[in-house]
Amino acid sequence: MTGGSENGLSVVALAGGVGGARLIDGLDRVLPPGSLTAVVNTGDDFEHWGLHISPDLDTVMYTLAGLAPEDRGWGIGGDTFEVLGEARRRGVDDWFQLGDRDLVTHLFRTKAMSGGKSLTQTTATLCKALGVERPILPMSDEPCPTTILTRRGEELAFQEWLVKERAALPVSNVRHGGSGETTRSVVDALNLADLIVICPSNPYVSIDPILGLTGIKEAVRLKPTVAVSPILGGKAVKGPLAAMISEIDGRPPSAEAVAAHYEDLLGGYAVHPGDSFEAPYPTLETNVHIQTIDDRVRFAGELIAFARKLK
Amino acid sequence: MTGGSENGLSVVALAGGVGGARLIDGLDRVLPPGSLTAVVNTGDDFEHWGLHISPDLDTVMYTLAGLAPEDRGWGIGGDTFEVLGEARRRGVDDWFQLGDRDLVTHLFRTKAMSGGKSLTQTTATLCKALGVERPILPMSDEPCPTTILTRRGEELAFQEWLVKERAALPVSNVRHGGSGETTRSVVDALNLADLIVICPSNPYVSIDPILGLTGIKEAVRLKPTVAVSPILGGKAVKGPLAAMISEIDGRPPSAEAVAAHYEDLLGGYAVHPGDSFEAPYPTLETNVHIQTIDDRVRFAGELIAFARKLK
Repeated sequence: MTGGSENGLSVVALAGGVGGARLIDGLDRVLPPGSLTAVVNTGDDFEHWGLHISPDLDTVMYTLAGLAPEDRGWGIGGDTFEVLGEARRRGVDDWFQLGDRDLVTHLFRTKAMSGGKSLTQTTATLCKALGVERPILPMSDEPCPTTILTRRGEELAFQEWLVKERAALPVSNVRHGGSGETTRSVVDALNLADLIVICPSNPYVSIDPILGLTGIKEAVRLKPTVAVSPILGGKAVKGPLAAMISEIDGRPPSAEAVAAHYEDLLGGYAVHPGDSFEAPYPTLETNVHIQTIDDRVRFAGELIAFARKLK
Repeated sequence: MTGGSENGLSVVALAGGVGGARLIDGLDRVLPPGSLTAVVNTGDDFEHWGLHISPDLDTVMYTLAGLAPEDRGWGIGGDTFEVLGEARRRGVDDWFQLGDRDLVTHLFRTKAMSGGKSLTQTTATLCKALGVERPILPMSDEPCPTTILTRRGEELAFQEWLVKERAALPVSNVRHGGSGETTRSVVDALNLADLIVICPSNPYVSIDPILGLTGIKEAVRLKPTVAVSPILGGKAVKGPLAAMISEIDGRPPSAEAVAAHYEDLLGGYAVHPGDSFEAPYPTLETNVHIQTIDDRVRFAGELIAFARKLK
């Protein structure tokens, strides 16, 4: 890997929700201040109760703030649900679980954006209030809605498919909407990066939305890039990825299938023990299941050391 | 009083917050279904946290739904404040107390109105979800902001003056903003009314905003109208009214001062024992302090009986 001294190392992590957030947290803990930028999927963003909700940005922000729950992949740990309970009593649409503390994020994001602030600016303000100093950049300031196309011919907004329909409808394809524009901040971060990390997120609905934006794939291709497999022993740690690989790409879910999806972008790949395959680039085989803080730190350290040795 | 049989009696109550809400609740309990319409001040409406808040509409709605607290003049009894607590922790503007259950009202009002529904339609939907059947009509579907002009020359939105500044800044005058238009529903209710009741609300900031809308005063003048004094023994039951009478009209606070404010609109007036004065219309002297449900029912019954005897 090219790039400066440890203090000068610039890392950009492309991420979706939980898996991405945990790796970013690990990287955040092992890299010196000023070296990490997270570029986060906003294809899942949607409006609910009139509020702008950014599930992946929030998961990354809450994880870095130490607020994410241990036992589920959304919201704030120990949150209460008084507002949701009242909404239910009044017969209001309640399929999306909004905690009371979590709600403050959506209220103030919505207010700031209706006052003309960009999602990038708003995310920075929200992060600051929670003591999160490392930059978390939305992949775009424009709406980029991800639509799930089902085998039965339905078209569903991603969160509706995932949460309301519990990811039960087989997927035929995924459509990435919007203008396709990223932001100046993302472009600058990519241009300055010594290393790009593709987090262990769902390639179809977390990473593809980012890579599909104008200029991103080209910028990533110019840099040393390592990905982390989100498939462990043929199974996804969380979420609907395993089924999607079969349904969309028609192959069994595996670390290799995910790597094939990223085609020529990879300069290195981290997989779980037993998941290695014959790859045209170096592979780091180690425990990539990073639930605890210790696991995150251990794995992030291994990943950075691995990336440093790449040509 | 003219007007039909008891079953055909149409009563329109003009009201602001707590005092008005309690009288409306009493009238609601003694009048047959279909006979009562509340026309409620919206001059206090304001935006907070990006939400459309209608303090007086909510106070009336919560009171009729049996949700209003006994011990304070706003919100829902027994409400929790998880969202507010989190907003405080994040350094967000927290001068206006929003409970968690209360918040559902503001969220769904804001969402409905940003989707093109009028405040009148939205209020009906909110009431229905809380089981409130009697019509509660906002005085207008347009913004009609009440501004407090202080002796020191400041101009403050009403809720800022009342809540943020705790009504501590002496008032020189009150300005009623907006287009001055009422709604078709209010005009129809007034035209059909056999009796108008001016509730024991603050004349400057609760009743004047209603009476100042185009055509309202003229419509009220055509109907038998009774008012209920909001001043008891020289003191307001609640809120800043007593000081405002001195500051704006330059006279000591009294039931008579409020009646004088309504000039020629009154055909009858209800005052607290000891508050009678020489009036050009019949006066009902009785306990007008109506905190409990029993008091509300007792007083509403007396008021209707008194109004029936008016010419």
